[in-house]
Amino acid sequence: MTTHASLSAEAAVLEQLESWAAAVRAQDVDAIVAHYAPDIVAFDAVMKLQFKGVAAYRDHWQTCVEMFPGPMVLELHEVTIHADHQVAFCHALQRCGGTDAKGQFQAGWLRLTSGYRRIEGEWKVVHEHFSAPFDMESDKALLHLAP
Amino acid sequence: MTTHASLSAEAAVLEQLESWAAAVRAQDVDAIVAHYAPDIVAFDAVMKLQFKGVAAYRDHWQTCVEMFPGPMVLELHEVTIHADHQVAFCHALQRCGGTDAKGQFQAGWLRLTSGYRRIEGEWKVVHEHFSAPFDMESDKALLHLAP
Repeated sequence: MTTHASLSAEAAVLEQLESWAAAVRAQDVDAIVAHYAPDIVAFDAVMKLQFKGVAAYRDHWQTCVEMFPGPMVLELHEVTIHADHQVAFCHALQRCGGTDAKGQFQAGWLRLTSGYRRIEGEWKVVHEHFSAPFDMESDKALLHLAP
Repeated sequence: MTTHASLSAEAAVLEQLESWAAAVRAQDVDAIVAHYAPDIVAFDAVMKLQFKGVAAYRDHWQTCVEMFPGPMVLELHEVTIHADHQVAFCHALQRCGGTDAKGQFQAGWLRLTSGYRRIEGEWKVVHEHFSAPFDMESDKALLHLAP
């Protein structure tokens, strides 16, 4: 059942998602982590199985941002939001990339799922999952699959 | 705010998750897909960026099950559920594997996020996201990271 309340929750979650994406494009780590709950559990596309808590995840974002000193690309495609009064999640495909320390532009496609809770009236990300699928023969991440 | 209603929703979602995991262990594709909504959008760990709709995702499950004719291992760890009246999501780490056609047992760790909606009173998976993180130097999936 889609109610007026859930429609307004969807709009509020979309606003948070777009604000987060703008923070990523700006490579503003403080603005990125302002969207996260203190006890976020994050599954990032690279390096570790999980990051627990906003401090550990902030350090990881800092590392990622420093790898791409040039402008950052982040486009969200096929965004779908499911929202109720206190709990919401969304999924999207994202084209992301940036210019690395050698001046080379690298971009690829990832999948994003974000889980939200309304905490003291504000929608915060309590869970985030980014990934690329991998090829079962080579075990290599498939970064150039386009939708 | 955690209410009695959201506690009972959490219990109902956990029951669905455990029933789904049992179906995977049994390699019963019909029982697996019985947990999915018709318009599921799935981000699997392998092969493709996404699978849209239960028919396409069923075919993919069939392929995966046929790759591992032996007994299937699926253990869920660190399960966290966020549930409201109509929308819920959960995340977990999973150790999964099986015996391949050559008789070799292969296992590794993946991350799982599932999104649920209550449809006509029943919790159904509308979104599923499995992945392994990859190494940024080699682009190889990191399948043996343990929590």
